[in-house]
Amino acid sequence: MTDTERRLAEAEERLALLEGRLARLEDEAAVTALILSYGPLVDSGQAEAVAALWTPDGVYDVDELLMTGRAEIEAMVRSGKHQRWIREGCAHVVGAPRVRVTGDEAVAVCYTLMIVRAPEAGEFTLRRATANHWRLRRGPHGWRVTVRSNRVLDGRPESPELLASGVGAAPERDA
Amino acid sequence: MTDTERRLAEAEERLALLEGRLARLEDEAAVTALILSYGPLVDSGQAEAVAALWTPDGVYDVDELLMTGRAEIEAMVRSGKHQRWIREGCAHVVGAPRVRVTGDEAVAVCYTLMIVRAPEAGEFTLRRATANHWRLRRGPHGWRVTVRSNRVLDGRPESPELLASGVGAAPERDA
Amino acid sequence: MTDTERRLAEAEERLALLEGRLARLEDEAAVTALILSYGPLVDSGQAEAVAALWTPDGVYDVDELLMTGRAEIEAMVRSGKHQRWIREGCAHVVGAPRVRVTGDEAVAVCYTLMIVRAPEAGEFTLRRATANHWRLRRGPHGWRVTVRSNRVLDGRPESPELLASGVGAAPERDA
Repeated sequence: MTDTERRLAEAEERLALLEGRLARLEDEAAVTALILSYGPLVDSGQAEAVAALWTPDGVYDVDELLMTGRAEIEAMVRSGKHQRWIREGCAHVVGAPRVRVTGDEAVAVCYTLMIVRAPEAGEFTLRRATANHWRLRRGPHGWRVTVRSNRVLDGRPESPELLASGVGAAPERDA
Repeated sequence: MTDTERRLAEAEERLALLEGRLARLEDEAAVTALILSYGPLVDSGQAEAVAALWTPDGVYDVDELLMTGRAEIEAMVRSGKHQRWIREGCAHVVGAPRVRVTGDEAVAVCYTLMIVRAPEAGEFTLRRATANHWRLRRGPHGWRVTVRSNRVLDGRPESPELLASGVGAAPERDA
Repeated sequence: MTDTERRLAEAEERLALLEGRLARLEDEAAVTALILSYGPLVDSGQAEAVAALWTPDGVYDVDELLMTGRAEIEAMVRSGKHQRWIREGCAHVVGAPRVRVTGDEAVAVCYTLMIVRAPEAGEFTLRRATANHWRLRRGPHGWRVTVRSNRVLDGRPESPELLASGVGAAPERDA
C-alpha cells in the first residue's frame, strides 16, 4: 500500500465516524423537534397533524384517558372539551426534552404544563404539571411516537417513576 | 480514472454532504441560542443587547405594542414599566423553540410565560402565556430576528393561528 | 505534489474542520442533556444520581442553602423537606438552557420553575421562578457541574446579575 492509499483509507474511516456521529445528533434534533411541535399543533386544533405525530397504532396514555391509534387522538383534539379550551385560552407548554436515541428507537422525558386563562382573575392558572415519558421509533417517514405516557405530578407514585425511567440510568460515579 | 482517484472523488462527495448537514444543525443551534438569550437579556435590563437580537429595521409585534427598529425595542426595555418589573421580580421565560431553517431564513415557534412576583401571596403569578412566532435572517454578523409576533393565549383567534403558521406544514400521513 | 496528493491534503483539512465543529455541537448537546436531567432526577428522588451531575467537589449555591460536595447535595435530596414535596406533588422544571462551550469549560444560563400542588385549590402553584447560572467542566467521565448558582427572581439584584453574566457578552452591533 502506498502512502497515498494509506492516507485515503484513514480519511474514509474518519468520514464513516463523522457520518455516524452526525446522524446521531440529527436524530436527537428530529425527535426534539417532533416533541416540541405537539403544543403548537394541539393548541391550534390541528387534529390530524397531532395524530400524525404518532405511529398509526401509537398510544397516548394520559391519567384519565387512554387513546390507542390516531383516530382516538384526533377525537380528543376535536372534542368539545379541547375546543372549549382553545376558545377560552389555553397553552400546552411542552418543556425541553431529554432525549436518548438507540438505533431506530428513542426515549425522551420532559415536563408539560397545562395553562388556562382564569378570566375572573385576569390572569392564567397552572392547571396541571405533568411528567411525560415518550417512546419513539424511526419508520419509513421519519420519527413517530409509539407510546407517550403522562401522569400528573400530584403525589401519585407513577409520576416520579415515569421521570426516573425516562431519564435512564444514572451517570457513572467518578469519585 | 484510477481506483484511488475514484475513492478520492467519493470521499469529496461525502465531505460536501457532511458539510451541508452540519451547517444545517449549526444554524438550528444558533437560532435556538439567539431565541433563548432573549429572556436573560430582557430580565437583566440589557436594552442594547436585547435590541441587537433584531436586524436594524426588525419588528417586535406584541399585543398592545408594535415596535419597529432597534430604538423602539431599546425604549421598551428602558421604560419605567419594564424597569419596575425587574425591580419587583419578573421572569420572561422563553420556551424551547421549534425551529425550521431554509437557507438564510428561519421560522421558529415557541411559548413564552411572563411570571411576576405576587408579594402579597408570597409566591409568583402567571401573568401571561403567549404564542410566539419568529422570523429570522442570516446576515453578515449571523442570525438576527426580522419579525417577532406575540399574541397572548386568551382565546383570541390570532394566537392559535400564530402557532399553526409557526409550526409549519403538518407531517405527511404515513398510514 | 501530484494533483491527487493535493486533493487528499485538502480533504484531510476539511475532515479536521468538520471534526472540530461536530465536537462543539456534541459538547453543547451533552451539556444541555445533563442540565435537563436535573429535574427528572430530583423529582424522582434519585439522590446519588443528582449528586453525580456535579464534580466530587462541586458547588450548588441556592438562595437559602450552600451545598459543597456531593454528600451535601445528596443530603438535600434525601431531606424530609424534599421528600415531602415529592409525596405531595412537585415539579422542578428546568428551562431550555443557553449554553456556551469553550474548550473543556462551559457556562449555561436558564430559568427554573418550582411548581407545587395546591391541594385546596385543586391546582398547582408557582412557588419560585429562579435565575440559574451553571459552570461545567469536562473530565475523564464527561461533563459535570462545578458551580450552579440559583437566585430567586423576586427583585433582589443578584438574580438579574446572574442572568447577565450567564448569557455572556452582548452580540456585536451591526448597524
